[in-house]
Amino acid sequence: YLFLDCVLVLCLQWTEMKVNNFSAGPSKIPDSVVNQVSKDILEYQNLGYSVLEISHRSKVFEEILSKVKAHLYELLKIPDNFDVFFLQGGATFQNTFIPANKPTLIDNLIFLISGTWGKKTFQDFEKYYNQNPFSIPFNHETYDELITNVYKSDEKYLYITSNETIEGIQIRNFNNFDNKELIIDMSSDICSYVFDWKNISYVYAGAQKNLGIPGVTICISKEGFLEKSNLTSYIDAHNHIDKNSAFNTPPTFSIYVMLKVLEWIADSGGLEKIQLDNSIKAETLYKFLDENSEKFNLSVPKEFRSYSNIVFDFKDSKLTSNFLQSSVNKGFLGLNGHRSIGGVRVSNYNSISIEMVEDLITHLKGFI
Amino acid sequence: YLFLDCVLVLCLQWTEMKVNNFSAGPSKIPDSVVNQVSKDILEYQNLGYSVLEISHRSKVFEEILSKVKAHLYELLKIPDNFDVFFLQGGATFQNTFIPANKPTLIDNLIFLISGTWGKKTFQDFEKYYNQNPFSIPFNHETYDELITNVYKSDEKYLYITSNETIEGIQIRNFNNFDNKELIIDMSSDICSYVFDWKNISYVYAGAQKNLGIPGVTICISKEGFLEKSNLTSYIDAHNHIDKNSAFNTPPTFSIYVMLKVLEWIADSGGLEKIQLDNSIKAETLYKFLDENSEKFNLSVPKEFRSYSNIVFDFKDSKLTSNFLQSSVNKGFLGLNGHRSIGGVRVSNYNSISIEMVEDLITHLKGFI
Repeated sequence: YLFLDCVLVLCLQWTEMKVNNFSAGPSKIPDSVVNQVSKDILEYQNLGYSVLEISHRSKVFEEILSKVKAHLYELLKIPDNFDVFFLQGGATFQNTFIPANKPTLIDNLIFLISGTWGKKTFQDFEKYYNQNPFSIPFNHETYDELITNVYKSDEKYLYITSNETIEGIQIRNFNNFDNKELIIDMSSDICSYVFDWKNISYVYAGAQKNLGIPGVTICISKEGFLEKSNLTSYIDAHNHIDKNSAFNTPPTFSIYVMLKVLEWIADSGGLEKIQLDNSIKAETLYKFLDENSEKFNLSVPKEFRSYSNIVFDFKDSKLTSNFLQSSVNKGFLGLNGHRSIGGVRVSNYNSISIEMVEDLITHLKGFI
Repeated sequence: YLFLDCVLVLCLQWTEMKVNNFSAGPSKIPDSVVNQVSKDILEYQNLGYSVLEISHRSKVFEEILSKVKAHLYELLKIPDNFDVFFLQGGATFQNTFIPANKPTLIDNLIFLISGTWGKKTFQDFEKYYNQNPFSIPFNHETYDELITNVYKSDEKYLYITSNETIEGIQIRNFNNFDNKELIIDMSSDICSYVFDWKNISYVYAGAQKNLGIPGVTICISKEGFLEKSNLTSYIDAHNHIDKNSAFNTPPTFSIYVMLKVLEWIADSGGLEKIQLDNSIKAETLYKFLDENSEKFNLSVPKEFRSYSNIVFDFKDSKLTSNFLQSSVNKGFLGLNGHRSIGGVRVSNYNSISIEMVEDLITHLKGFI
C-alpha cells in the first residue's frame, strides 16, 4: 500500500497543470488550505475518523465553531454587542430572513441599488413587506454625490450591497453614511478589508468567495436589531443565536473549511495585510487597463471600482471572445463576465496571488 | 517532496486507530468515499484544481448535478412525474418551506406524530398556518391498529416521519395507507430501502445520514403538489425546480459528496442489497437484545422497530453509564442516546458493516 500511495503521489505531480482560477465564486481556495483539508478528510486530529464524519453535537465540532467565531471577532474587530451566527441558504435566503426578523424595517429603510444583487434583494423585500421600499439608484460618479443623496433621506436604515460582483462596483466607506444604520450584503468582499462597525446594524455573507466553500452564510447582528416575531423555527433568528448556530444540523464541513481559511488569513498577516495585497493586485490590473484605455471599456466610476471583481470589456468585441477562448486553453479559468452582461470579469479574492495577476496581464498583452 | 509524502502516508498508517462510528448523523462515510473525496480535493478529474473550487455555473458541476439526479431516480425508482431538487437548511427548513408552497394543505392534512421530529414539524405547521392540524398520536402496537386509525380520517394528505431517530421508531409500509397521499420526512432513512411511490406526494431528507454530509436537503415532489404562491425568492419552490437547483449558489461540495455516496450504493449492489444488509445488521442486534431481555429495555413495539436507529437501555442504569464510558475508550463512538431521553442508540446507517455490529455485540456482552 505504501508503494501504491507513493506512485499515486507521483502521478498527481506528473499530471499537474498550471491553472489560474479567477472564478467569481465558488472560487480559488489557498493551496495550503486545500492540502490540509485533503489530509483532515482522511483523518482529523488523530481521532481515527474523517472530518466529514464529525457530529455537530461533538466537542470536536464545538471547538471548530468557537474558533471560527473567535477568528471572525478578532480579524473583523467585531464589537462585543454583536452576535455572530451561521445559517444556510446563501445571501438569497437572507432576503426572506431579514424582513421576517425585522418586521418594522420597512418603515425606516432606504435601499441603495448599486447592481444586480441589490436589485434582487430590493425585489424580495418588496414582496415580503408587500410594499415598495424607498430606493436610491446608482447614478453617482463620486462618493460625495452619493453621500449627499443619502443624507437627503430621513430613514434610519440604509441597505447596501458592499460589492456587486456582476457590475464590479464596490462601496467600502461605510462610515461616510453617518446618519444611517447600515444593513450590508457583504457576500463577495467580507474579510477582504478592515472596516469600522460604528454605524452598522447587520452584515451577512455567503462564504464561497473569501471564506471557503458554499453552504454557510455568516450573519453578524447588533444586539437589539433583530426583533422577536412569531416565526416558524428555522426562519427565527433567535433560535440560531440562542443555540449557538446548532439549532438544527449546521453545515459542519463548510464551517470547518471556513476555519481553515480564517487561520490562513491570520497566518498571512491578518486583514490589514490581506487588504494591502488586494489593493496592490487590483490597482496593478486597473493601471494596465487605464494605460491601454484605447483598447478597453471600463464603465464603473473610478471611486467605486471594485477590488474584488474587476469588470471590463475589449472595445473590439471580437477580441473579447478570442481572449476568453484563449484563456480557457491556457488555464485561466472563470474570466467570463456574468452571463447577463458579458465581457470580462477578473475575480480578485484573497486567495489570488500577485503572480496570478501578473500572469494574467502578460496574457492580456497578447490581445492589445 | 515525494519522500515527505511517503513519510506522511506511513505516519497516518502508524497512528491509525480502530474506530467504530455509530453516530446518529453526521455519521460514518464509507471508507472508499472518504479516500476518493480526499484525492478529489487535491485535484478533481485532472482539471488542475480542487473539487472545493468548482463553480456552480461550470459544466463540471452541471455533470455532478445531473448524475446525482440520475442515480436518485434510478436507485429509488422515482417516477417521471416527480421533480427532484436540492435545498439548504435541513429538514427543519422544510417545516417552513412546505406550508409556504402548499397553502391549502392545512385543510386536508392529518399528522402522524410518531416521535420528536414529527412533533417539531407539527408545531411549525401549526405556527405557519396559525391553525392546529389534525393529528394521530403514536400509541399503536401494530400496523393494523395504526392503519385502522388512519382510515377513520377523511383528510387527503397524511404527514409522517418515516424514521424517528431519537425514539427509534420506523414506518416503512407506506402503501398500506392507501386512502392517503403521503408527505414524508425521510431524513434518516432515505436510500436505506426500496419503496413504492404510488401514494406519495412529497419526500424530503437531509443528506447527513445515508447520503453524505450536512448542508443539502433532497426534495422529491410530485408534479402539481406544490402550488404557486407569491413568495420571496429562496422560499419559492418553483425557482429551485425551474433553475435545476442552481437558482442561487447551491452547496456544491455537499452535492458532490452525495454523488460519491450514491455511486458507492450503486456499486455495492443497489438499494435491494443495501436493504438486505441493513435488515441483517439490525435483526442481528435486536436478536441479541431480545435474547437478553432480562438485561435490556426496548420500548418500541416490534412492528415499528427502526432498522436505522436501534434504541435501548440497560435495566440497570449504572450499566448504561459504564457501558457508554467504556465504549468511548474502546473507539465505539456516537452510542449515547439523544440527550432528551438518554440510554443507548446504535445508528445502523448504510455505511455500517456487519463486522461493526458484531464487534459491538461482543462489546455489549462484557456488560451482561
